[in-house]
Amino acid sequence: MYYFTTFVPMAHNSFGNRLVLTTFGESHGSAIGGVLEGCPAGMLLDLEAIQDELNRRKPGQSKIVTQRKELDKVQFLSGIFEGKTTGTPIGFLITNSNQKSKDYEHLKEVYRPSHADFTYQKKYGHRDYRGGGRSSARETANWVVGGAIAKQIISFIEIHAFTSSVGDVYIDKPYQELDFSKTENNSVRCPDTHSAKKMISLIETIKKEGDTIGGTVTCAVTNVPIGLGEPVFNKLQAQLAKAMFSINAVKGFEYGAGFCAPKMRGSEHNDLFNTDGSTQTNLSGGIQGGISNGMDIYFRVAFKPVATLMQTQQTINTNAELVKIKGKGRHDPCVVPRAVPVVEAMTALVLADFWLMHRNQST
Amino acid sequence: MYYFTTFVPMAHNSFGNRLVLTTFGESHGSAIGGVLEGCPAGMLLDLEAIQDELNRRKPGQSKIVTQRKELDKVQFLSGIFEGKTTGTPIGFLITNSNQKSKDYEHLKEVYRPSHADFTYQKKYGHRDYRGGGRSSARETANWVVGGAIAKQIISFIEIHAFTSSVGDVYIDKPYQELDFSKTENNSVRCPDTHSAKKMISLIETIKKEGDTIGGTVTCAVTNVPIGLGEPVFNKLQAQLAKAMFSINAVKGFEYGAGFCAPKMRGSEHNDLFNTDGSTQTNLSGGIQGGISNGMDIYFRVAFKPVATLMQTQQTINTNAELVKIKGKGRHDPCVVPRAVPVVEAMTALVLADFWLMHRNQST
Amino acid sequence: MYYFTTFVPMAHNSFGNRLVLTTFGESHGSAIGGVLEGCPAGMLLDLEAIQDELNRRKPGQSKIVTQRKELDKVQFLSGIFEGKTTGTPIGFLITNSNQKSKDYEHLKEVYRPSHADFTYQKKYGHRDYRGGGRSSARETANWVVGGAIAKQIISFIEIHAFTSSVGDVYIDKPYQELDFSKTENNSVRCPDTHSAKKMISLIETIKKEGDTIGGTVTCAVTNVPIGLGEPVFNKLQAQLAKAMFSINAVKGFEYGAGFCAPKMRGSEHNDLFNTDGSTQTNLSGGIQGGISNGMDIYFRVAFKPVATLMQTQQTINTNAELVKIKGKGRHDPCVVPRAVPVVEAMTALVLADFWLMHRNQST
Amino acid sequence: MYYFTTFVPMAHNSFGNRLVLTTFGESHGSAIGGVLEGCPAGMLLDLEAIQDELNRRKPGQSKIVTQRKELDKVQFLSGIFEGKTTGTPIGFLITNSNQKSKDYEHLKEVYRPSHADFTYQKKYGHRDYRGGGRSSARETANWVVGGAIAKQIISFIEIHAFTSSVGDVYIDKPYQELDFSKTENNSVRCPDTHSAKKMISLIETIKKEGDTIGGTVTCAVTNVPIGLGEPVFNKLQAQLAKAMFSINAVKGFEYGAGFCAPKMRGSEHNDLFNTDGSTQTNLSGGIQGGISNGMDIYFRVAFKPVATLMQTQQTINTNAELVKIKGKGRHDPCVVPRAVPVVEAMTALVLADFWLMHRNQST
Repeated sequence: MYYFTTFVPMAHNSFGNRLVLTTFGESHGSAIGGVLEGCPAGMLLDLEAIQDELNRRKPGQSKIVTQRKELDKVQFLSGIFEGKTTGTPIGFLITNSNQKSKDYEHLKEVYRPSHADFTYQKKYGHRDYRGGGRSSARETANWVVGGAIAKQIISFIEIHAFTSSVGDVYIDKPYQELDFSKTENNSVRCPDTHSAKKMISLIETIKKEGDTIGGTVTCAVTNVPIGLGEPVFNKLQAQLAKAMFSINAVKGFEYGAGFCAPKMRGSEHNDLFNTDGSTQTNLSGGIQGGISNGMDIYFRVAFKPVATLMQTQQTINTNAELVKIKGKGRHDPCVVPRAVPVVEAMTALVLADFWLMHRNQST
Repeated sequence: MYYFTTFVPMAHNSFGNRLVLTTFGESHGSAIGGVLEGCPAGMLLDLEAIQDELNRRKPGQSKIVTQRKELDKVQFLSGIFEGKTTGTPIGFLITNSNQKSKDYEHLKEVYRPSHADFTYQKKYGHRDYRGGGRSSARETANWVVGGAIAKQIISFIEIHAFTSSVGDVYIDKPYQELDFSKTENNSVRCPDTHSAKKMISLIETIKKEGDTIGGTVTCAVTNVPIGLGEPVFNKLQAQLAKAMFSINAVKGFEYGAGFCAPKMRGSEHNDLFNTDGSTQTNLSGGIQGGISNGMDIYFRVAFKPVATLMQTQQTINTNAELVKIKGKGRHDPCVVPRAVPVVEAMTALVLADFWLMHRNQST
Repeated sequence: MYYFTTFVPMAHNSFGNRLVLTTFGESHGSAIGGVLEGCPAGMLLDLEAIQDELNRRKPGQSKIVTQRKELDKVQFLSGIFEGKTTGTPIGFLITNSNQKSKDYEHLKEVYRPSHADFTYQKKYGHRDYRGGGRSSARETANWVVGGAIAKQIISFIEIHAFTSSVGDVYIDKPYQELDFSKTENNSVRCPDTHSAKKMISLIETIKKEGDTIGGTVTCAVTNVPIGLGEPVFNKLQAQLAKAMFSINAVKGFEYGAGFCAPKMRGSEHNDLFNTDGSTQTNLSGGIQGGISNGMDIYFRVAFKPVATLMQTQQTINTNAELVKIKGKGRHDPCVVPRAVPVVEAMTALVLADFWLMHRNQST
Repeated sequence: MYYFTTFVPMAHNSFGNRLVLTTFGESHGSAIGGVLEGCPAGMLLDLEAIQDELNRRKPGQSKIVTQRKELDKVQFLSGIFEGKTTGTPIGFLITNSNQKSKDYEHLKEVYRPSHADFTYQKKYGHRDYRGGGRSSARETANWVVGGAIAKQIISFIEIHAFTSSVGDVYIDKPYQELDFSKTENNSVRCPDTHSAKKMISLIETIKKEGDTIGGTVTCAVTNVPIGLGEPVFNKLQAQLAKAMFSINAVKGFEYGAGFCAPKMRGSEHNDLFNTDGSTQTNLSGGIQGGISNGMDIYFRVAFKPVATLMQTQQTINTNAELVKIKGKGRHDPCVVPRAVPVVEAMTALVLADFWLMHRNQST
């Protein structure tokens, strides 16, 4: 009856069930931002701590990350009165200060290899060539704001993410032997000083070659209350996995014994109880039947190498012709150091969401 | 004002956005079942194919799985008229025929190690000791019904899951070299006959020892249309990960290069385009920016060894006393062979859900 | 790329946020049923009371309603153990015992006036001519089951719906002067005996003429806790309105002063407070700013006359030709007496849903 | 285990299923705003038309509305590129320019009669006394922005709301005889010039007396496609009702024959078909079985008189003492003229939402 010539919209810009983050904004628009719904009222919000988290994620913070400069200053519009949360939605925005759209002009008709350009164009029939639009990892700045508030909701839980490997350089110690207070002491966010140096050195070498490198982020969560998670379709590990795979460049997620578990026998893998309900070992990674058991939750996230290279690559353009491209913008040689606060943010959003369900259940 | 003495309910018994499976039922109640909403109308439903999928999952099908006998016969109550779907919700149920609750009587006051007993009790204040209630993997029979219908919605997509390892026995070939028509030829569901024999032999040995063993399931999805998935919070890989981690005993998920990606350089990892938009390599695993690119999707799922052993284990009871238990019921020495159809079912539910969104976008 | 020949499904078969009723089933399929998610655990469920509610709605209960015979016996499949709710989803079904599909055979190619036949066909491209399928008011039997459980969740709240008018016969007293214990004493469910007789007499006359008549249901809810409802998009009155307009044949809804309010001045309409927070008048109908204030909630629901007449009517068929039809099945001359328990059920579902949110807020 | 001292948050700040408006902001914070998700891509957005709608709602536009001055200038932050929608979420904000919080200082410890003060405080344990916070009708400015975009999505549908009565002054013609181009010609938004004068005169009189008056808004929607709405829990009339009862001060909603239907016989009320599928009469109000039938949709919304009076009223304070108050701020003597664009906005949001579902179904 009526013909509709316009293109379909993008769905699913919200995350969470009780603590719901809804985001908007393109990497090269005037601002990005979001609405955080479900934050309890009466919390004295530490705004500086939120900005600090954004600073951990922001470009240009060290030599081994992209040299783009973004102020990344978050501005709150609602939901806070006299320094305290009111329980109403927290609206916030981050102005985009340094959009060098020209850096992307040459990409207008090119599909970059292993980027979202091709799939976005094919799905939606158009795309924002200026740095990826909504597909850009710039979106994760919004998540860091939401996550920083989430951290304050569950301030009794400690979330420690860190770079556990870059390329084939990895920390050869269990997380229990690490001193997390050292994570922020170096630009690669590795709490093991010795490994950190080797990682930084590797990234510098890779950068010189105009290449990029992958890595892993490990996250250890301590002081977790018993009871977070649901037994069927909202298992704690399932929601954590969804959160991690929402982060750009993630290729793998494992928790507890992870990919070692398939090689083990039940008699080795089972965590025997102590009489206080804690377990002697923790191969389960703090979760049983989808619900936290009070032991540490720990998991590992695999990041692929950044797809934008400062080398000449062959690719195709929108006319299906082979062309050569070379990265021009200011890009990360390794995404992992800046991914650490994003992993923490998404972890905090998941845990706070479950906590808000859980505490309501404790009546 | 009013005091409420009852306990909190379990949330999140639905999966999917457009194709929504809502389930009910305990392992030892009279029936389990569900409602599948969103199945297109006018589909000639192959009911036998649905029952076949259930039979692949059902207990007692071979020597290397649990010897419980369940008919697992699905019964449809609505949404189908003269053999065709009507587009209305499909209600179905599976009667529980063989609930030996007595097998579980001895567990009434015991928390089994690495089971959901302890966390469920602590979260909800009570639990169904008869085989785990909603926490039981029996729930996955409902998923297989939903997934079997989903497979028929996206019949042009081929989903091949198979056992890729048991303990340290693994297939040492890429999936492209396997003949998936052989997967069902052996009880372990491994398409590589040579590996299959070794896996079965390992499981039999483990079983004799009263022990259990883990394994991995690999899934290769071919003939995938371009455009499934959303760029921000509902990335195809994120929803697949959530689906897989919903399955009991899963500890890890990786797709494409997975946990190898962190060790790679961008110049190695990038998938260069052919002029037709396909890629020369497929380290991306068929997904770019959260959206399928038309190449094969492949991923690997890690399963831990089954926690119930036919050995004596030390554990605690509800009075926080140390006690000894030994598995009495009829349990799987290795969950992987029966998990294969469940992995396929959850994959089908995810892909059909995105397909239903996608085809609507193609107007 | 792929062409999809099948028809679109029906969406939105769930109601509620925390207490979620998901339903399935066609009027002439083998069964209807549903899943109620979110019912607190540990409630001793009065199954007889649930069946009693179904009996109030069921056909054939008196001379002034349809003479179809349906057993309408509800069967519970899960979520209840040793008589108590477990907090897990409650699956239930009602077998369709008396589907005289032949009664509808003559309607296969006809669009009945003021029925859903035409719109359903145009929207979905097909329809279930056997009594309306999902569009049939038979669906409301599922709601009565859900509502009967909801009533037990909020057993401290009293919900009294009753027939307040049939045609131009109406009760000329405020609800406060009625004795609700008399509602079930007559077949029209009017607590005012004098009016009830006139209503029954009117319906009998109308029935003899092969015609039908409309009416109103008033509902008074007493002993409501303060605090049910949300201030923005989930106002208590908004959700109640949505619930009532979900019921077939409803044309109007008003609460408190309703359609009298537009004629009033603020100085007349404002409810002045007593010092205990109650109000001297209650023109607000127990709700302020979307949230219950502890006073009675009362509202009125307008039902149109049943569209199926035992008279010859002109209509069109699927070939756009004028044809004559005459109702053949067994239909209600007035829907209102059987709508009373449905109004109560939907009210209970709304209030229990808000109550479950509310009590969690009371920590 | 952990004690949580903070207050519960406000839920449900989103409206819609496919076209989802999520809002934030308090009446006296720095800004209000929202995110509109689901707007199709490629639409040339008429920004001026959006601002025009806001101007229709804004305070201070005529003598018969509140004399507060708000610029109410909407600012878009994302989702629009080179004047066209991109299909990504549209973030927007409206700065609060004229918050005279002092006007409300005297209300800090007072519960105003028939306002949300009491219920909000009792539900949440605190409240924003500066003009109602989220409970304020200022929130509806966000809805007008969302609705103005929705109108452009369904530009082929015409939505005409108008003031149909103020107090006992009402238009005594059917809407078909009105010239909607005259609605904006007078400050009361009544297309019948004669009635408009009487309404304005009545409001002026009422205002002088420091009193307020109620009224009704009628809305006629023409050129509606067949097929909007769902047959079970998302009936078109149910969602419209929910939308209307979300608007502050609404006490009643009826569509089609509305509250006249209960008095009618089926033989009078049934709308007989013409051979083209249209109907000879339209007592159904354009909806059958929850789905639009292509005829005009028309409905009537009852608004109560504004609760804030410029008269002295008795009320209670937070210490449960009787006190006297008198309105000090700048308030509307009658809410109806400014409610007209809000009714249109909510209607547009509902219809566009269903249209986006519907057009996807038309494949």
